[in-house]
Amino acid sequence: MIAEPQQRPADWCDNAAVMTEPDFRNVAVVLVNTSHPGNIGASARAMKNMGLSRLVLVQPKEFPSGVAVGRAASAVDVLEQAQVVKSLGEAIADCGLVIGASARSRSIPWPLLTPEQCARRALAETGRHRVALVFGREDTGLSNEELQLCHYHVRIPANSGYSSLNLAAAVLIVCYELYKAAMPEDDDGAGTVEREWDQELATGEDVERFYEHLERVLVAVDFHDPGNPRHLMQRIRRLFGRIRIDVMEMNILRGMLTHIEKNLKDRG
Amino acid sequence: MIAEPQQRPADWCDNAAVMTEPDFRNVAVVLVNTSHPGNIGASARAMKNMGLSRLVLVQPKEFPSGVAVGRAASAVDVLEQAQVVKSLGEAIADCGLVIGASARSRSIPWPLLTPEQCARRALAETGRHRVALVFGREDTGLSNEELQLCHYHVRIPANSGYSSLNLAAAVLIVCYELYKAAMPEDDDGAGTVEREWDQELATGEDVERFYEHLERVLVAVDFHDPGNPRHLMQRIRRLFGRIRIDVMEMNILRGMLTHIEKNLKDRG
Repeated sequence: MIAEPQQRPADWCDNAAVMTEPDFRNVAVVLVNTSHPGNIGASARAMKNMGLSRLVLVQPKEFPSGVAVGRAASAVDVLEQAQVVKSLGEAIADCGLVIGASARSRSIPWPLLTPEQCARRALAETGRHRVALVFGREDTGLSNEELQLCHYHVRIPANSGYSSLNLAAAVLIVCYELYKAAMPEDDDGAGTVEREWDQELATGEDVERFYEHLERVLVAVDFHDPGNPRHLMQRIRRLFGRIRIDVMEMNILRGMLTHIEKNLKDRG
Repeated sequence: MIAEPQQRPADWCDNAAVMTEPDFRNVAVVLVNTSHPGNIGASARAMKNMGLSRLVLVQPKEFPSGVAVGRAASAVDVLEQAQVVKSLGEAIADCGLVIGASARSRSIPWPLLTPEQCARRALAETGRHRVALVFGREDTGLSNEELQLCHYHVRIPANSGYSSLNLAAAVLIVCYELYKAAMPEDDDGAGTVEREWDQELATGEDVERFYEHLERVLVAVDFHDPGNPRHLMQRIRRLFGRIRIDVMEMNILRGMLTHIEKNLKDRG
């Protein structure tokens, strides 16, 4: 997740964006014999979404193409800079690491990576040499000969009942895992609630005073009998404990209680 | 990665496939006010690829649609079973957990999940109640009102320079993370080479005997002088250690050495 810089001068902001994004200039997406230009455009968009820009097309059926431009949306620059070559050999001639997408087991098993492993491998080597991520035809994928030009194969986990992904979908997932691997988050399972929240969280002490205040009010309105508590306060703690109450919400809750008390007193 | 059952009777095979795939019948993908029917079709395909089948459409601009059917490929069944409703409220009425895709920070921050966190949360609750994954319009996403109907928001990490994903691309990534979370792999970083290889790996003892054999041959051909080793054998160990040599490859290597030795003797 990219935290968007807030209220900074525009020039500084732009530099910051360039600095924090990963550098994938050494990583090429190679599409072999693509039939549908729409898939080339959609792949370009998926690449740019994930910070990649080097697209190499091996004998595309139709390119350049208006359909490709339409599907590329704001990634037309990726299409314009795309390199068109005659063979996969030519496409990967300057690459030190070649990983090919493979939909199914071949006659000769090859070192097979998950998309995450593919991302880690590519990321580890991209500083040393060019890396190619190779995707085959819409209908038949890469040929056995082409697969044997790859150092590794990558297979996208999918439903065994229908594992045939659209070409641009496969490009997206491989690029997405690469982007994720390059932009690690501290994913501690607690969610990003705290980091992106607009208010400070209430302190434990604040929350305790709230429980005390709430209990007083519940007693005052005869909802709660401390002599026969029926786990009420525990249940309330469990309820509020699940939300991380922020300072403003705490002020609201305490304000409500104070107003309830005041009204009870006025009427009493 | 789903290991494909091999050489099993077809009926048993089908049952096995059903048993091992995750059960996402309680998870709905809700698309709000989709403009382009192609995106509905592509979303259906992405869903089915990742094992989901419940599609709910809130006031789609054009549906049913031949374009949607074309892009759905073999996921036409998902389109045919899709439910069309009038409002997001209606779509999520029976859902106990609602997670909405959000492209950017809103005026009121909301608990924000990464796609992985979204997947874990959905998976944890899908046994208890229905779960909705909600995606907004192609151009403007979900409105603030719609976002506030969600318990959580999910944001897909993307290049800050162009973070606008195609609708079906966003659906794919959220569903892909859900599928991955439901089908955990033992990803120990060692790759899946061993598991999916067609040959047993050579044992450490075999490899040691190979090194001894190789050293003998290298000495015999005056390439290697044990009195002045220059780290040669270490370098060779490092080289072969990086490949996990399988039994057949080991036979080949040992065979090569034996043949070299035999020829040296015959000539000597």
